[in-house]
Amino acid sequence: MILLNFEELGIDALLISGLPNVRYVSGFTGSNGMVLVTADRPILFTDPRYQIQAKHEKIGDFRVHLVRSGPLSHAVARVLAKTRYKKLGFEKGRLTYEQYLALKEKLPLNVELVPVGGVIEKVRMVKQPAEIEKIRRSVFTNSQAFEAAKKRIKPGVTENDVAAEIDYQMRRHGAEKAAFETIVASGERSALPHAHPTRKPLAKDELVLMDMGSCQNGYTSDMTRVLFLEKPKPRIASLYRAVLEAQLAAIDSVREGVTAERVDRAARIVLAAHKLDKQFLHSTGHGLGLEIHESPRLGKKDKTVLVEGMVITIEPGAYLEGVGGVRIEDTILVTKTGCEVLTPTSKELTVL
Amino acid sequence: MILLNFEELGIDALLISGLPNVRYVSGFTGSNGMVLVTADRPILFTDPRYQIQAKHEKIGDFRVHLVRSGPLSHAVARVLAKTRYKKLGFEKGRLTYEQYLALKEKLPLNVELVPVGGVIEKVRMVKQPAEIEKIRRSVFTNSQAFEAAKKRIKPGVTENDVAAEIDYQMRRHGAEKAAFETIVASGERSALPHAHPTRKPLAKDELVLMDMGSCQNGYTSDMTRVLFLEKPKPRIASLYRAVLEAQLAAIDSVREGVTAERVDRAARIVLAAHKLDKQFLHSTGHGLGLEIHESPRLGKKDKTVLVEGMVITIEPGAYLEGVGGVRIEDTILVTKTGCEVLTPTSKELTVL
Repeated sequence: MILLNFEELGIDALLISGLPNVRYVSGFTGSNGMVLVTADRPILFTDPRYQIQAKHEKIGDFRVHLVRSGPLSHAVARVLAKTRYKKLGFEKGRLTYEQYLALKEKLPLNVELVPVGGVIEKVRMVKQPAEIEKIRRSVFTNSQAFEAAKKRIKPGVTENDVAAEIDYQMRRHGAEKAAFETIVASGERSALPHAHPTRKPLAKDELVLMDMGSCQNGYTSDMTRVLFLEKPKPRIASLYRAVLEAQLAAIDSVREGVTAERVDRAARIVLAAHKLDKQFLHSTGHGLGLEIHESPRLGKKDKTVLVEGMVITIEPGAYLEGVGGVRIEDTILVTKTGCEVLTPTSKELTVL
Repeated sequence: MILLNFEELGIDALLISGLPNVRYVSGFTGSNGMVLVTADRPILFTDPRYQIQAKHEKIGDFRVHLVRSGPLSHAVARVLAKTRYKKLGFEKGRLTYEQYLALKEKLPLNVELVPVGGVIEKVRMVKQPAEIEKIRRSVFTNSQAFEAAKKRIKPGVTENDVAAEIDYQMRRHGAEKAAFETIVASGERSALPHAHPTRKPLAKDELVLMDMGSCQNGYTSDMTRVLFLEKPKPRIASLYRAVLEAQLAAIDSVREGVTAERVDRAARIVLAAHKLDKQFLHSTGHGLGLEIHESPRLGKKDKTVLVEGMVITIEPGAYLEGVGGVRIEDTILVTKTGCEVLTPTSKELTVL
């Protein structure tokens, strides 16, 4: 069990309700679970569908409490009512207002509910060596899947076909699933940063943007690449080079002790020099791990100081409505003196 | 825009924050969006990543409000503060406690926050004809994918391989993605109702349980089938027949006017007659549509009265630890006088 400073949080018990947090502390991967942490044995609450699975998966000395009817939060309240604990912290970003009401409704009046934010998420930001190995594996699988899928990319094939092939190759190379809905956007559709793939066939004079992530042993990876079916027009080639320059500058700025916003600024400065800063509509990156989006956010105003063991994406982009967009993204590991780019896939401007 | 009775809810404005609800009312499919409904033009709040997409997708007379920084709820509060509306309903099951606090913090003191539950979900329970067509298509794709993937099932192939093939075939047949993580569980692992597929190869004397759903044009489908690689032992064959009998009995009980719990009971009565009711660990089914789990839940104590146009699953199962489990699931459409089983796939005990 990880060590939490309950005194600092002003609590004597913590209810963990965010599923990735539940998995992180208990090993349980089911879709319905909560963990109650006190000075006694931690308790994993789930329902009878997961009876066998919870027994197999749980790590450490968790007690499994099966809830046969009603919401888990009611069972948590019943269990807590029989203890000496009076200040129950709950994850304010991981409990709906409705779950909060359900918990409050069943708790004795002398138990106080204390909203806490990002407690487990903060611990999760810095990865354990075993986690880094899993992410490394997930990143490698993702790049293998990209290389395999690349062979099928040619004019006439639809965005949907490419996305299906990418997802299939992820699975074939060991991922349990895609970490998010694979983006394949061609031509001017690439100017939509979160385009769903469509039945649109790829045309010879268009670029193809692919944003893809694998999930393997629960751990995610994230990569974006842009490929060309013929030599791009000068305007698009310049766009590509500008975004790549911004991506390399941001990577270059990463090391322990630097703030997240400074990495973001490194990318923006380069894009501004190319008069593309107004076309960069999102932040430069994000942490990943058990979830595809974790802290920190590498964006304006994020003062998080990077620490060795954090795993983040670096993904600047520029989007020209009616023309097209370019985004280049790697998954990287922060180290004491810089970073290790985990993604092995080439970023050279590639014409298939 | 659907008609909502604000007077009955005691509100004069409604903030829709659940993404499937946002999509249902506005057509917007992005991952960051909220809708504010008042007597004036409805407003769709999103961030600049979705500027182009929101313009393309929105249905009706929505005004798109782009939020350049900070949470959407802050922007909602700022907009509302300039209006005459004083009672803002929010979706208590679709807003985290943290988002609730953020909203409250920025609202003028004379605006009251009113928690409401399941307002849009209740409307969504009964499907429009256009929605039924989309679900029908999704169910059909799912069954086509199953038939195509079935050809690859043989001893030695891993659970992962089968799951990857199923997902690939879904995409090839028109789905944009799997509606949930495809379950492939063989042998005694089939006793875990929500097993993740593993590298375990299928053995000749084992059953294979597959629980799979497609998502096509945003609409889901859900089906479970069990296949055999050789003639099953009598105990497993009886288990299969008992579950199928329970499934058919539950389907037979469906029609407009019947309660959800009565359909659940119809399955339980049959399993009890086979002394398998204690091995049936979940409810008999659930609604589906834009989400894979929607109201009603066909379980004990759910008094929802079924109405023509609801789409639900019927999926009893029985799980013997250390032996194996069987679940059989179809997606069905409730009609005035009974139901239409949308899933065309055979439920005969099949030896490949």
